[in-house]
Amino acid sequence: MNDEFYMQLALNKAWEFQILTYPNPAVGCVITDRNGKILSCEAHKKAGCLHAEPMAVFFALCALSGEFLAKFLDAYGAKFSQNFSGLDELKSAELEPNFTYEFILAYHANLLKGAKAYVTLEPCSHHGRTPPCAELLKRLNFGEVVIGARDENKIASGGAEILKNSGVRVKFDVLKDKALELIAPFRAWHDGNFSFLKIALSANGVANGGVISGEQSRTHVHKLRSVIDLLVIGGNTVRTDRPRLDTRLINGGENPDVLIFSRRQNFDESIPLFKVPGRNVKISDSLDFDAKLVMYEGAQYFLNMAAKREIPNLKWLLIYQSPNFKDGENLKIGLNLRPIFRGSFGDDSYMWCEILADTSKKAKFSVQSSANLCEP
Amino acid sequence: MNDEFYMQLALNKAWEFQILTYPNPAVGCVITDRNGKILSCEAHKKAGCLHAEPMAVFFALCALSGEFLAKFLDAYGAKFSQNFSGLDELKSAELEPNFTYEFILAYHANLLKGAKAYVTLEPCSHHGRTPPCAELLKRLNFGEVVIGARDENKIASGGAEILKNSGVRVKFDVLKDKALELIAPFRAWHDGNFSFLKIALSANGVANGGVISGEQSRTHVHKLRSVIDLLVIGGNTVRTDRPRLDTRLINGGENPDVLIFSRRQNFDESIPLFKVPGRNVKISDSLDFDAKLVMYEGAQYFLNMAAKREIPNLKWLLIYQSPNFKDGENLKIGLNLRPIFRGSFGDDSYMWCEILADTSKKAKFSVQSSANLCEP
Repeated sequence: MNDEFYMQLALNKAWEFQILTYPNPAVGCVITDRNGKILSCEAHKKAGCLHAEPMAVFFALCALSGEFLAKFLDAYGAKFSQNFSGLDELKSAELEPNFTYEFILAYHANLLKGAKAYVTLEPCSHHGRTPPCAELLKRLNFGEVVIGARDENKIASGGAEILKNSGVRVKFDVLKDKALELIAPFRAWHDGNFSFLKIALSANGVANGGVISGEQSRTHVHKLRSVIDLLVIGGNTVRTDRPRLDTRLINGGENPDVLIFSRRQNFDESIPLFKVPGRNVKISDSLDFDAKLVMYEGAQYFLNMAAKREIPNLKWLLIYQSPNFKDGENLKIGLNLRPIFRGSFGDDSYMWCEILADTSKKAKFSVQSSANLCEP
Repeated sequence: MNDEFYMQLALNKAWEFQILTYPNPAVGCVITDRNGKILSCEAHKKAGCLHAEPMAVFFALCALSGEFLAKFLDAYGAKFSQNFSGLDELKSAELEPNFTYEFILAYHANLLKGAKAYVTLEPCSHHGRTPPCAELLKRLNFGEVVIGARDENKIASGGAEILKNSGVRVKFDVLKDKALELIAPFRAWHDGNFSFLKIALSANGVANGGVISGEQSRTHVHKLRSVIDLLVIGGNTVRTDRPRLDTRLINGGENPDVLIFSRRQNFDESIPLFKVPGRNVKISDSLDFDAKLVMYEGAQYFLNMAAKREIPNLKWLLIYQSPNFKDGENLKIGLNLRPIFRGSFGDDSYMWCEILADTSKKAKFSVQSSANLCEP
């Protein structure tokens, strides 16, 4: 298998945490030992948590050495020492970054000497909330680091230089375009704003009539709500659905501020979204605001606006699609999309995509001209 | 990474050739060297071609030894010796099975001693059109063979015994349920009949109004047409679309026999499907026939029948879905599906799935009760 294969694994892992790492970029990392065996595949999950590289290093060391793992569990204290159920428990925990980083430096026992890391983004060189990743790979004597996209962030870049200067081989630009696309949201909010529109559909394009997507998809929506700066929703949706728009499906989620896009200012104040604690609600007929990371939730209305480029700074759509057919009307619009990443949450699929063109007129014409049911 | 990770890679590869291996089962194989590095990931592609194991063994040897590859290109003659563009060219070629098998035995140079094979189905023990795979793995001194599903086919089973008796470690039942699901079509046609319904949809559930899916999806449909025993299509579709239903997008494809499901026997004989060479066309209002592997092509009409369990022996749906929205009416039906496998062809996604239940009544009720646009 070539470098592209391992980089793709790292990219896929990073995409699982797209947006959720805000304000940090999504990053994935795969580590293979000196013989080419995969030891770990990890990602940065959340700002304030370990970066992708120390995550992958940590789990590579756990895979190589029961002694390393035992020592860690011991040092980490009671949290894991009783009834430890295995690595999956560690993976779902939020390891304390500085403690874990220092523990790795103290106990790696040179087990990763000559190993190879595939990182979707150039390892950072700066002391932020966590120590620099390039330094870690260097001090563990990695043999080679393969990088997807170069880091052009002035504060964090320079990691490749640190590595090269200490004799680590560095290869750039493996699946570079995909690696750049992964951090497009990061680059957009870093330079100003990243906005996306989330919709949920049945397999046959129905967006109304009760809950569409499964619990895993809805949990993902709540995770997104927890990190965004602002949630924008249409006034009619608020009146009809009386939503809560909170993060109750996740532990410790923060409830997002809400902007209700509406000309009419009067809303029934018993609608649940107004009573969610720790939230500001604004009602406005303008989409001109300052937030850096914005999620639009809606369907036909915002989709029509998006197709006409009437939503400022809208970059991507996030479409959840259930495998089920619902007996109802579909969203009516002609729209060409470019899929950027596809994944699944349980039985649902989801797709991050970009709007290419509004094809309403063309599509209407061809609907009138033929009823071609089978693509002969 | 654990055994499940590698077995999943083998399963994914096998699914790419689901149905296309008829009358053989779909099988995938991953080979790692004695140190755990992945050397190859291959599948059985077509009856009469190499099985998954010799395919994976061949490409593992190519990855390990330039000398092996050079000798093979030399021995295989002019086909590859001029302007050879690399392994991808070999991968897309149909290697002559017996020649390649014997070549492996002659030149493997013990390079795979101690290697590990992950096979979705127990390696075969019988001389069919190709020599037995268990014998090959044994003679190359593999250290371990990890098996997804046991082979219960009396002619081909016994491979694990051959391996165990010569000291190869054998591990069974890794991702067994998924491995059994992969060969469900094989087991169905082996015991009688496997029928599936293929539909193509836009992202918002529109199935008419011109071509829906992209060229890669349509090429896949032509590959399916080339292996099935019978294509069933509705009479109205034939009258409206005047389809050809051939295999023109692939080289050397066979055109399937067609059954037009219709009460009325009169059709305009200038409809292209009647002029396709090498084909029998039958017009019937009965779905009672003998074919072992049957594809239904259609949309609303057959989907309604499928939901009501009115298509005999229908096992699965195959749904191609483009990422685009088409401004038109969707298929109207309430139907719960269970996804079995999801993949993509270019920008389209596709899903093999099973029908769980017709939910028309329930869905109609919830459509009437609410216009919940955002899943609050």
